[in-house]
Amino acid sequence: MTKVWLNGEILDADAARIDPADRGFLLGDGAFETLRFEAGAVRRWPRHRARLESALKQIETACPDFAGLEAAVTELCEANALERARVRLTVSRGASGGGLAPPAGVAPTVLITADALPDAPQALSATLIESARRDARNISSRFKLTHYADMLMARRDALRQGADMALVLSAEGHLSSADSANLFWVTAGRVFTPDLSCGCLPGTSRAALIAALEAEGERVTEGRFAPDALMQAEAAFVTNAVWGVVPLSRVAGHALALADATLRRMKALCEVAP
Amino acid sequence: MTKVWLNGEILDADAARIDPADRGFLLGDGAFETLRFEAGAVRRWPRHRARLESALKQIETACPDFAGLEAAVTELCEANALERARVRLTVSRGASGGGLAPPAGVAPTVLITADALPDAPQALSATLIESARRDARNISSRFKLTHYADMLMARRDALRQGADMALVLSAEGHLSSADSANLFWVTAGRVFTPDLSCGCLPGTSRAALIAALEAEGERVTEGRFAPDALMQAEAAFVTNAVWGVVPLSRVAGHALALADATLRRMKALCEVAP
Repeated sequence: MTKVWLNGEILDADAARIDPADRGFLLGDGAFETLRFEAGAVRRWPRHRARLESALKQIETACPDFAGLEAAVTELCEANALERARVRLTVSRGASGGGLAPPAGVAPTVLITADALPDAPQALSATLIESARRDARNISSRFKLTHYADMLMARRDALRQGADMALVLSAEGHLSSADSANLFWVTAGRVFTPDLSCGCLPGTSRAALIAALEAEGERVTEGRFAPDALMQAEAAFVTNAVWGVVPLSRVAGHALALADATLRRMKALCEVAP
Repeated sequence: MTKVWLNGEILDADAARIDPADRGFLLGDGAFETLRFEAGAVRRWPRHRARLESALKQIETACPDFAGLEAAVTELCEANALERARVRLTVSRGASGGGLAPPAGVAPTVLITADALPDAPQALSATLIESARRDARNISSRFKLTHYADMLMARRDALRQGADMALVLSAEGHLSSADSANLFWVTAGRVFTPDLSCGCLPGTSRAALIAALEAEGERVTEGRFAPDALMQAEAAFVTNAVWGVVPLSRVAGHALALADATLRRMKALCEVAP
């Protein structure tokens, strides 16, 4: 039986209970991180911890024993005999029912689950969808909240169009991100990525790669770009915590260039970056 | 002990269990309705049923025994000895974990909860907030999904500004709706409300009031309006399923006119409209 970690206890998954009054279930009132666990530790835990902390601060939810979360992840992976795991850490505001203004003093719900780390795909196709936009004015675009209905629709539309994942635009029509990953591309040797003002999540791998390139004297250009920017790229790729760098082979039906040396270098940099 | 209805059974609330793998909890992957139960029936059930059905169709989730939901609400209100109740009916995609593309064939989670019907406030103050925008391109703005992080932030900011609720603009800056209610106003005897293209939910009371006015030969003007439109109104009000019509007494610090006869008429029309 798979084990989960719920509010400080390791339980069989079928014995773990979320209260029906949990605001995570009723309203999407929570935050989460998806983590890569390997070599006995959470990859880039300081980045994930900082992002989760900022989301919880934003939604004014305190996580009890925040400092103990990394140890809890390790303990859960050991309980599940997982040496390399994809871990999800979810914190919701807790079981206080559905009103817009939550009462104070309710204990949050903290859930950790883990399964085997999936292999990163060799490459992915993506398509531009029109059924969702990201808006940096909304906290759901800026923080990793349990609030994914729009990205679920984006993914569904991409699959229907025969692609693996969706690229989502900002409200103003600029490139924002993939449905579950950040987006980068390389043109004339320069690395580009949408600015956070385009409503993309501040990804941990995104930040790590930007820092790694800067350490080598290369500045990543963060800005607002029309979707056409991708079509002229010599390589494009997405990043997330589970996969690292994955090349984009097609966008909206157009085959993209796949500059091998560039992609290998980005993958390697992202793997070693702290 | 309060009773809830979960997947066909009436249970003590503390015996009801949502699975930690429920996508409603993990991703806000679900839809809901808030209902008014009185005189032995759900008020405007056909309108709620149709809206829930459209949301579930949109997110491709089938609700088992959809036709039996109204009877389930009645049964739950009786079990809780509630003659007049606020009822929440929630359907999530069910317990299949957190990936963006859900596996097929997972049973959805259907939860009904009920509490005493609250009295409608005499009047409310509202304020324009900038921390959330509604975008009709996103399904989370067009359908009533368990995906409220942005509206929670809107309400929080309104409370901080000393108002009771938030007015939210569309991505383009037009009036959209209140954080948990639709918005109407009356100017020179004509009734106005934001068009659905401004990202407001298609409210059941909104639709009922529009139909009731049309039955009296008055066309409600649905359109895209700047926030200033409210300031010149002779009356403004919000509508939702629990309260019906509630006047807005202040918007963004400005006292609004409260044309008594107009507000009384709107309230009465909305109460009797089917």
